[in-house]
Amino acid sequence: MKLIVQKFGGTSVRDAERIRNVAGIIADTYKAGNRVLAVLSAQGDTTDDLIEKAREINPRASKREMDMLLSTGEQISIALCAMALEAMGLPVVSLAAWQAGIHTTSAHSDARIKSIDAERIRRELDQNKIVLVAGFQGVSRFGDVTTLGRGGSDTSAVALAAAFRADLCQIYTDVDGVYTTDPRIVPGARKLPEITYDEMLELASQGAQVLHNRSVELAKKYHVNMEVVSSLERKPGTKVKEVVKMEKTSIAGVAKDTSMARIAVVQLEHSPGVAFRMFSLLSQASINVDAIIQSIGREDGKDISFTLPKTDVEEAVRLLEEQKDALGFEQLIVDEKIAKVSIVGAGMMSTPGVATKMFEALYDANINIQMINTSEIRVSVFIDEEDVNAAMRAVHDKFFGDQL
Amino acid sequence: MKLIVQKFGGTSVRDAERIRNVAGIIADTYKAGNRVLAVLSAQGDTTDDLIEKAREINPRASKREMDMLLSTGEQISIALCAMALEAMGLPVVSLAAWQAGIHTTSAHSDARIKSIDAERIRRELDQNKIVLVAGFQGVSRFGDVTTLGRGGSDTSAVALAAAFRADLCQIYTDVDGVYTTDPRIVPGARKLPEITYDEMLELASQGAQVLHNRSVELAKKYHVNMEVVSSLERKPGTKVKEVVKMEKTSIAGVAKDTSMARIAVVQLEHSPGVAFRMFSLLSQASINVDAIIQSIGREDGKDISFTLPKTDVEEAVRLLEEQKDALGFEQLIVDEKIAKVSIVGAGMMSTPGVATKMFEALYDANINIQMINTSEIRVSVFIDEEDVNAAMRAVHDKFFGDQL
Repeated sequence: MKLIVQKFGGTSVRDAERIRNVAGIIADTYKAGNRVLAVLSAQGDTTDDLIEKAREINPRASKREMDMLLSTGEQISIALCAMALEAMGLPVVSLAAWQAGIHTTSAHSDARIKSIDAERIRRELDQNKIVLVAGFQGVSRFGDVTTLGRGGSDTSAVALAAAFRADLCQIYTDVDGVYTTDPRIVPGARKLPEITYDEMLELASQGAQVLHNRSVELAKKYHVNMEVVSSLERKPGTKVKEVVKMEKTSIAGVAKDTSMARIAVVQLEHSPGVAFRMFSLLSQASINVDAIIQSIGREDGKDISFTLPKTDVEEAVRLLEEQKDALGFEQLIVDEKIAKVSIVGAGMMSTPGVATKMFEALYDANINIQMINTSEIRVSVFIDEEDVNAAMRAVHDKFFGDQL
Repeated sequence: MKLIVQKFGGTSVRDAERIRNVAGIIADTYKAGNRVLAVLSAQGDTTDDLIEKAREINPRASKREMDMLLSTGEQISIALCAMALEAMGLPVVSLAAWQAGIHTTSAHSDARIKSIDAERIRRELDQNKIVLVAGFQGVSRFGDVTTLGRGGSDTSAVALAAAFRADLCQIYTDVDGVYTTDPRIVPGARKLPEITYDEMLELASQGAQVLHNRSVELAKKYHVNMEVVSSLERKPGTKVKEVVKMEKTSIAGVAKDTSMARIAVVQLEHSPGVAFRMFSLLSQASINVDAIIQSIGREDGKDISFTLPKTDVEEAVRLLEEQKDALGFEQLIVDEKIAKVSIVGAGMMSTPGVATKMFEALYDANINIQMINTSEIRVSVFIDEEDVNAAMRAVHDKFFGDQL
């Protein structure tokens, strides 16, 4: 008998009809002879409504109390879904994170799962019950409710799949799998039957929003077989695993990210450690710098450009300006109109000329590259924001166009 | 340093403004040098909204899952109120029942508190924190969330006051105390400064809806000093305790109850044990019979009348008709148009003629008495439902009128 973990996000459980749909998927899996452990997010609007209630009372509420508040959302989802399964005559039990034994760090609003106490879930599964677990939440060693931050329910699902050595961890979403690129922008985008953890990680961190990185990292670490699948249509999704069958093409997909801005620090002094001081200043403020490019040093100082989330620009500029004299630079130039386009593929390592092919596609489309940043299985270029969709189409066509 | 338990009901926390008001009361009590343990109910509409969500999915959901769903309501209240206190710069922590160590029986939707594990609350109070506890809920020995049924949050508050030997347990409501009768019906009604547990119990069970009986019983058992007080006006309420100062009048109040119906079982056989068999039939079906009157036996059988909640009439009639031959009666006569008016007072025992005074008031008002039922500190009469308000005014005037 197989154990299957299924995760359903907020849009999949947003109203009574969708909850019945989710219960139907779970019921089918159970009736096919599997044991089922399902992880649910809060209903679509619930979290927003709760945040609004909190904001009205105290816009700077403690994270401890925000977690206490927001964790009710998933509890509502699992109770309602359990009721839907009861209506189908199936044995089911819903468990909040403290009941499911999901122990986390005490970092409220951004906790990490430390361990899972399997006893309660094991007992329920042994009684042939379908077990529904509240996603996104855990309990700290102080007995406080925590939440896991962005992509939390995916992480809950993968952690449970790892702890119970599940045969499969299915992530149900409102898309039906992982695509070679965004189908809304590139009509020729096609669904990948399989993708490796590393490719998925690069795609996710380069802007593909199907899975959150933390969950994929966890899946890779514990060898959890994942599958991204649609909660609305019953058809095969995309499998995420260690090794995939070789594709004809060397890349798995093309992603875009328009959430970044670029800051150029112009005429920075030559003194040693100046880059270190600058970036440690930013990292102490929890500002994640993405790509960094440093020009070759000239007589009168060097220029350093880096990209960072648009939401952090204001604070980064403030911090740098405060230290302008200490760091010794001339001026800051901020460009918020940039976009990043990336190609990702495990096959890239063994296939020469992949980056060249990408640059050629952009050149043919008359798109100017401002910065380049690469990893072992990824090439990213920064371009003008208004060129981003044209760039995606050009690059995708170059790699996948001839296969259609 | 005194420990004060404060309980706030659903209307007292129904929106952001009311929650800030509640936080203000708690803050004042804390700043006056007391330790505060506050128990909150779910916000006014929350429980109804959740019940509606459940009904849409499964009108016959298990009580276990209903408890899981509904218990989120109080958790939302305590988190929001904690945020309001944080905004005032006060140290506070909110605790769901499983965190507060409130252990109950496993009777979902109607659980009883068995014990309170004081450790967590004690630790928080010792750190000078205001502690907010979710009312109405507990945790069973199986680790499941339970709810306490009607009047549950009052019971949570009194149980916590008993466990922590609180100096006072304040029940905040939208009325400002216990009145000699319903002020909406009798303009001359006046607020009682004090009332005994027994009087409060009789008043509550005779229709006064200020406090739930379970909480008063618990308060009496553990000698918890209670106070009913308004959450909207800062003025003295009504103290509920063991012994009160002697009042000039012998009664504490006048109550009405129009939720009852009367069933007359006509020409019941004389065979021994027939009354026992009849009422055990009803009690097995959890039907609570209120007053019973048996006429003097005649040659051709006796009549037995009893009162019971209107909601139970249908089932009681069905059960009795099924056993008509076995019980041996002629017919059932149901009267749903009756009302009960009661006077309650601990002083009654030592003051002769109290009942007579009540009957005189009703006679003067030309109101016919159908049945009479008494306890040591209570006299109840059953009258025609349409006479109920006139009867209350007449009785109240007779006892309290000359004092105004």
